Amino acid sequence: MKRALKHLEKHKEGYLKELFEFLSIPSVSAQSSYRDDARRAAAWMRARLERAGFEAELFEGDGLPTVLGRRIEDPKLPTLLLYGHYDVQPPEPLEEWETKPFEPTLVNGEIRARGCADDKGPTLAMVLGAECWIEAAGKLPVNLKVIIEGEEESGGKVVYQCVHDRKADLAADALVIADVPGAAEGVPSICYGLRGLVGLELIVRGPGRDLHSGFYGGTVANPATALARLVATLHDADGRVAVPGFYDGVRKIDAKERARLKARALDEAEFLAGAGATETFGEKGFTTAERMGARPTCEVNGIYGGYMGEGTKTIIPARAGCKITCRLVPDQDPTKVGEAVERHLKEHAPPGVAVEVRRSAGAPAFYMDPDTDWARKAAAALQAAFGHAPALTRGGGSIPVVAAFKRELGLDPLLIGTYAPGERMHSPNERYYPDDFFRAIRTAIALYA
Amino acid sequence: MKRALKHLEKHKEGYLKELFEFLSIPSVSAQSSYRDDARRAAAWMRARLERAGFEAELFEGDGLPTVLGRRIEDPKLPTLLLYGHYDVQPPEPLEEWETKPFEPTLVNGEIRARGCADDKGPTLAMVLGAECWIEAAGKLPVNLKVIIEGEEESGGKVVYQCVHDRKADLAADALVIADVPGAAEGVPSICYGLRGLVGLELIVRGPGRDLHSGFYGGTVANPATALARLVATLHDADGRVAVPGFYDGVRKIDAKERARLKARALDEAEFLAGAGATETFGEKGFTTAERMGARPTCEVNGIYGGYMGEGTKTIIPARAGCKITCRLVPDQDPTKVGEAVERHLKEHAPPGVAVEVRRSAGAPAFYMDPDTDWARKAAAALQAAFGHAPALTRGGGSIPVVAAFKRELGLDPLLIGTYAPGERMHSPNERYYPDDFFRAIRTAIALYA
Repeated sequence: MKRALKHLEKHKEGYLKELFEFLSIPSVSAQSSYRDDARRAAAWMRARLERAGFEAELFEGDGLPTVLGRRIEDPKLPTLLLYGHYDVQPPEPLEEWETKPFEPTLVNGEIRARGCADDKGPTLAMVLGAECWIEAAGKLPVNLKVIIEGEEESGGKVVYQCVHDRKADLAADALVIADVPGAAEGVPSICYGLRGLVGLELIVRGPGRDLHSGFYGGTVANPATALARLVATLHDADGRVAVPGFYDGVRKIDAKERARLKARALDEAEFLAGAGATETFGEKGFTTAERMGARPTCEVNGIYGGYMGEGTKTIIPARAGCKITCRLVPDQDPTKVGEAVERHLKEHAPPGVAVEVRRSAGAPAFYMDPDTDWARKAAAALQAAFGHAPALTRGGGSIPVVAAFKRELGLDPLLIGTYAPGERMHSPNERYYPDDFFRAIRTAIALYA
Repeated sequence: MKRALKHLEKHKEGYLKELFEFLSIPSVSAQSSYRDDARRAAAWMRARLERAGFEAELFEGDGLPTVLGRRIEDPKLPTLLLYGHYDVQPPEPLEEWETKPFEPTLVNGEIRARGCADDKGPTLAMVLGAECWIEAAGKLPVNLKVIIEGEEESGGKVVYQCVHDRKADLAADALVIADVPGAAEGVPSICYGLRGLVGLELIVRGPGRDLHSGFYGGTVANPATALARLVATLHDADGRVAVPGFYDGVRKIDAKERARLKARALDEAEFLAGAGATETFGEKGFTTAERMGARPTCEVNGIYGGYMGEGTKTIIPARAGCKITCRLVPDQDPTKVGEAVERHLKEHAPPGVAVEVRRSAGAPAFYMDPDTDWARKAAAALQAAFGHAPALTRGGGSIPVVAAFKRELGLDPLLIGTYAPGERMHSPNERYYPDDFFRAIRTAIALYA
């Protein structure tokens, strides 16, 4: 292990350069115009795995490929399965970036690029940690299997096909995922719970085309107004979701869990500063940490309709719509929640418009006992790399494929957080510290040991 | 007059070509990227006036210039002031155009181009009618003054400065405006009432940047949801505006007016087909013609916020907004209505967000007695050109400058409708019949006589 760490020290500069190269590929999975770039990122990762000493291949399906890698040193050794993703969120709004999202730049010691923290840095670190072992010791102290998907940010299906079709190839003793933030600067985390997700798009249609709002105003239903009225029925004034059946199955927060969430010691002022918000807002009767990790939500991610450009255009829009995602907690059923929201929207459809609801496949929440043998091993590796014990966290985000790993392979994930929070995931000016990149590599080196 | 009409017959093809040239200049006043094009359209119109035999100039102010023209044959003759506009609505949504909006095209005998009916065709026709007289008889039978503005579609101020500063130069016996539709195909109109207008933009701000809706969902207010809740307070379920004070001063529809509006004999099925709508919707207790012409509205013209692109982006938007215009009737005060809506929006601001309201300068409604000497003269000219008496109409649209003409020059306008309705003003695939263009020129020839 010492030699592996020494190898890292010698190659830091080159590894950072490689990360920049990876970040400069705009692998946005949600937008079809980036399709070729995303494929380029997959090919880049496959080649990188091979160079590190893995066998690697692309698993092709109906969408962007999943990259698979494996290096079996000895069937008698335990096997780790490593998961990451090479795709990134859309960079919009572009005008709010201080640097170009796909031209990685160091600003005051921070890497700025779309996908640097989520999840290209942590993904590449797991591969480079293996390379350090192989280069320094000629072999790994563990068998490694790698699965790196390309549709994590867009809800694609290929990784599910892959986990299903390659069940036997992917069999492992433990699953490691480094796609969550740490607890604080220099304090890593082990995340024992994540929310699930179900997405909907609501489209309200009125007249056959945009109409002159003078000649037609007051005589036909306005889809933008109808949309607003419909969205307004989703919550009560306190932010509690007002959809019947939405909270069915939601697990109560028991005393032990409440204490755990409290221990996370979220600093409200720091939290608000991170969000650029002036006050918190949400369901009555719950703390911010509880609202974030242990309570479900129904959030509008985008709303659109009619004239959105500069100045004025006096029209009644032909249609208006919004994109919604609900975050779910144990033991909500994603399909039932999606159906409940769809039913609610259709039942509340205002007169004079047609309401269409599109639903994405959902994923349930993840929750595990944080007190296992593997979790202790991960904690030790994080302690070694950071010089600080990891905090136990429960996250508000979602990694939908976690449920498939459980179902197909019987594996709960070790979710390790190796980068400082405040990294502006999904936002402009996404940030990642070079030191966190090197700590992530050190964590991998220690974990494999 | 016969000779003037003969001149038209001989030059139809050339005149149509000139209209196409005018239409190919994308003089969108609302979008600054078209600024140079709009100036090009002003210069084009000024040169065209000079070629027809007018003195012409550009009145410059804080925005796009107003084109002025004059030809005084004899101070003893009556003087007509002609108003039109050379600017057009934005062409968006571009993907719904069957032809390019600024490449005028004949499709099944219809001209297709942004601004063909609103208002480049009717404006050019008034100038060409004068040229026919001048070319055929060496002079006009009347003095003509022309004012053609460049900010009708965007609520600019230059024409107001112009009418104010050039009061004396613009003095006339009657004002003619050809910026309203006719009553039916082949049936012209005289419009005795138009609605006023006041515009607002509502901006709801939440966090300092788009946030990850997993990590932050449920803990801070969502501006898109807050916007929807706010817009939902603007109307009751029947479409009546729910803003206190909004209906202050609204003139009751008396029996005579009710009969006049009824006589317009709006065919509901045809109306719906024209709008591409399946049902009408609006304030209880009023007919569609009443809702359109004699009742005020508060319409959302556009709504926006967060991720509006393809696929999914799981964020809480930093902000969301909407564009609103209220159409006004006699005797509402535009400023008071704007203030009332602003006050209402601010009073209903949901917690956790900041609400900003921007208001545009408004314009009151126009309403006149349709039974005047000049109206009879206009009716005779329309009858001569169309072979059909004009219908009396009251329109739902707005021509804000009408109030300034009244205030500064003491003139009520003769609003003449020379093109078939269903022209898709402000919508994709705007249409204008070449025959309506020639009838508009004939109307001008007869009117000047």
